Amino acid sequence: MKLCRYNDNRLGIVEGNEVIDVTPALDLIPPMRYPAPMGDQLIANLAAVRAKAGGLKAGGQRLPLDAVKFLPPVGNPTKIVNAPINYDDHIAESKADAGIAHGRTNITHISDWGLFLKANSALIGFGDEVKLRFPDRRNDHELELAVIIGKTCHKATQADALSYVAGYSMGLDMTIRGKQQTCWRKSVDTYAVCGPWMVTADELPDPTALDLVLKVNGEVRQNSNTKFLVYNIPRLIEYATEMYTLHPGDIIFSGTPAGVGPVVPGDVMSCYIQGIGEREMRVAKEYA
Amino acid sequence: MKLCRYNDNRLGIVEGNEVIDVTPALDLIPPMRYPAPMGDQLIANLAAVRAKAGGLKAGGQRLPLDAVKFLPPVGNPTKIVNAPINYDDHIAESKADAGIAHGRTNITHISDWGLFLKANSALIGFGDEVKLRFPDRRNDHELELAVIIGKTCHKATQADALSYVAGYSMGLDMTIRGKQQTCWRKSVDTYAVCGPWMVTADELPDPTALDLVLKVNGEVRQNSNTKFLVYNIPRLIEYATEMYTLHPGDIIFSGTPAGVGPVVPGDVMSCYIQGIGEREMRVAKEYA
Repeated sequence: MKLCRYNDNRLGIVEGNEVIDVTPALDLIPPMRYPAPMGDQLIANLAAVRAKAGGLKAGGQRLPLDAVKFLPPVGNPTKIVNAPINYDDHIAESKADAGIAHGRTNITHISDWGLFLKANSALIGFGDEVKLRFPDRRNDHELELAVIIGKTCHKATQADALSYVAGYSMGLDMTIRGKQQTCWRKSVDTYAVCGPWMVTADELPDPTALDLVLKVNGEVRQNSNTKFLVYNIPRLIEYATEMYTLHPGDIIFSGTPAGVGPVVPGDVMSCYIQGIGEREMRVAKEYA
Repeated sequence: MKLCRYNDNRLGIVEGNEVIDVTPALDLIPPMRYPAPMGDQLIANLAAVRAKAGGLKAGGQRLPLDAVKFLPPVGNPTKIVNAPINYDDHIAESKADAGIAHGRTNITHISDWGLFLKANSALIGFGDEVKLRFPDRRNDHELELAVIIGKTCHKATQADALSYVAGYSMGLDMTIRGKQQTCWRKSVDTYAVCGPWMVTADELPDPTALDLVLKVNGEVRQNSNTKFLVYNIPRLIEYATEMYTLHPGDIIFSGTPAGVGPVVPGDVMSCYIQGIGEREMRVAKEYA
């Protein structure tokens, strides 16, 4: 099932070029008293919400994809976890391009870096626009397969890691280049794009061999496959949970392949991942 | 006012050596439907909660401080922002100690690093215990003044920054040493200690000259004053909001002075910050 959130917190099933409104399925999510529980409550209640959504589909209003404003598939992630230098060809380009390296001499292996966090306040869906912050700095696109965790997960193994996954989405890890820490340069408001929808894990049983393509204004910039990941999705989940607990709705941006490069206001980034779909993301004409 | 959360999500006012139960004031926080709004809803509704708490105080049950289990003063921070290398004497010790530097040659100035994030899943209160994760790695204490943001805040200036502050607390930025990124080594579950309570900003109008002292098993290890911060609290808020929006309940750990050092299971860390108070934090005897 392709599940999306759109407009003013509506829930939809995506089929072909349409969104089918199944918003009443959200009523199954219990109201929250302060403090809200750890983890996104749509994802924590996904089995029940999916079942009800399936039943609502036949009677749901159908809208063209272009008629809705997509929100991120997860409304309340506890954290957004990100893999740095996780494709060999991106490691190579990062070393070769002084505009990426910024003097770093440790562009070696993900095990030397660990994972990093993007601020939750940076999260937007494909119905929004990326707003660049600093006109004088280089702002790059980084397309990545995004993993949405389904269950609380601690010390997973590569063998059981995929059993904790709710689904997959596209992640666009917008990045200011510079010598500062990744979690700083990548946490500007609007710099964590996720969507346009979540494909549930049963429809994408193998995330380890998916094509991904990013174009800017129609020109292919990134074109790779998740089989080239240094740490693939099961290993990333294992690695993350060696350090901390993952909660329902936590998002893992799995890393970007070669071809990263700058965008400017007005650019259109077309994002495609096999099994998920294709969607455009616009760089706003105004700076934030 | 010193406000605390304790036991099973109770709300208290701290006076002297007692906690006064004012839990019914939490009823003023509206129930949340999915998705929960950005920002912690206790802090977002603080003025109303405080007013009601004040009215409940005379009739509230009084408990000794040692009879309660303190929770973090913020239950749902959107993010935990942290300042690295923000005291000159900590910069000096980090350069001099290979066990801190781990080969880094860029221990220069906070402007070269930006701020980093700790995972929300790492947050605990003083009623809990720090659980070390890796027996073979060095785990250090870092005591810091913690700032709790009160209002949504974007592009603050040093002149208006303090008007966005709800209050102050103690932060214990537990840290695994290593060559990996800060946000990775500092995000283990239980490695973000905050509390034991929040002192509202009206009771601490000047956060720029507060003593802070950390002892391990009774021996003084860190002893400094926030007047030695490289970026003081107003500048940190300005700096953070150059990059992203802060939301109610976001916590800023402002950086640690010299004297950081390893702890082992069973150690007791005594934390003191002027105007907030003193409280012990135990390192659990078992590894996580």
